[in-house]
Amino acid sequence: MTRNVVGILGGMGPEATILLQQRVLASVTARDDGDHVPLLIDMNPQVPSRIAHLIEGTGRDPAPTLAEMARRLETAGATALAMPCNTAHHYAPQIEAAVSIPLLNMVDLAVARAAEIVPKGSSIGILASPAVRLVGVLDPALERAGLTALWPDDTDQLLSAIRSIKAHGLTPATRRILSHAASELAGKGAALVFIACSEFSLLAPSLSSAIPIIDTVDVLAGAIRDHSQMKSS
Amino acid sequence: MTRNVVGILGGMGPEATILLQQRVLASVTARDDGDHVPLLIDMNPQVPSRIAHLIEGTGRDPAPTLAEMARRLETAGATALAMPCNTAHHYAPQIEAAVSIPLLNMVDLAVARAAEIVPKGSSIGILASPAVRLVGVLDPALERAGLTALWPDDTDQLLSAIRSIKAHGLTPATRRILSHAASELAGKGAALVFIACSEFSLLAPSLSSAIPIIDTVDVLAGAIRDHSQMKSS
Repeated sequence: MTRNVVGILGGMGPEATILLQQRVLASVTARDDGDHVPLLIDMNPQVPSRIAHLIEGTGRDPAPTLAEMARRLETAGATALAMPCNTAHHYAPQIEAAVSIPLLNMVDLAVARAAEIVPKGSSIGILASPAVRLVGVLDPALERAGLTALWPDDTDQLLSAIRSIKAHGLTPATRRILSHAASELAGKGAALVFIACSEFSLLAPSLSSAIPIIDTVDVLAGAIRDHSQMKSS
Repeated sequence: MTRNVVGILGGMGPEATILLQQRVLASVTARDDGDHVPLLIDMNPQVPSRIAHLIEGTGRDPAPTLAEMARRLETAGATALAMPCNTAHHYAPQIEAAVSIPLLNMVDLAVARAAEIVPKGSSIGILASPAVRLVGVLDPALERAGLTALWPDDTDQLLSAIRSIKAHGLTPATRRILSHAASELAGKGAALVFIACSEFSLLAPSLSSAIPIIDTVDVLAGAIRDHSQMKSS
């Protein structure tokens, strides 16, 4: 049987691309290498900065680079695409327009998963970089599902935690910041928490929370595995 | 500047391919994503088993699959290839014949590094899967450099350690097995130890040894970084 191969638009950043591979690996019960999921990964850390383009208004538009990567992955044999970067999903329409294969949209998939669990009208707490908020990546999908985003009051502290994890790995202090933010969100009425940041994903398995947690990268890993196990045409 | 992109013949196994990416990442001092090394990774866990073909004599020849992966990576824009699997280097000639870009040969690079450190005629201790010994992947390159391979007496114990690390992660018991094997090799006169197995690479940073240790995956990560930072033509 020829397996479906998912093409990964990666490198935004490299750590998140590695994390996705680890989660895909963990999502499969394998007796042998051959049971694992085939991927074609374009690890391209030189994609123009999404933050510079969208927030600072100074940088080059990353969309043409992402479209080119998508085309290259399709040509190389990918039967679907995936992108382990929430912010870059702002450019999903340009990526989809460049190819004839589907994009397994991490944001849409995570919102759909949330909508299965919580009733319409619910608030979804968000643990992510303030950039995700500023760009408004999650809002249209949440709105379509009748859900609204709820952020912790102190998003600067989230950014400090991300920087600390990048520099020092997981520490009790960052664990406390994130647990505190999750409690705050539950207290403010969130029905569920999204983890939408690869640094926070590293903490997710040890995060205690009174409400359900959905890690967007896990949702994407599951969709990649499912696509790979579908019969290819 | 357009960066050189190394194509990775990966998936043998997926963990080793992830480990290589982590080591490439660690080999770069980055202020930003853009400083990191671009890679095109064909994560193909469905490459026919090297062990089945070379040792058990039952499996399909993996060479045509590896050649096809190499061609696909070259077409997609790779300017060099690399393969994070020592055993699969048995098929290096067929891979090189399929493309016009160089293969950064992990075995040759590691042997060259060893030859810079130890005098001709030295013995190189090997910590690897017994399959690497049976296939004789390292021997021709060592011989050309005037070096000889030295294995621990109990290679079954190395295999047990690999299986244990795959199943349970790093444990004090596996750390002891590997430290003991490294001491044995030093005692038998090895001038240097090669780590040529991704499970043992995980232990390498904490391994104490009276003689120098070269981790083949680190040598490859360094060569990938250097190729990426060369001016592209």
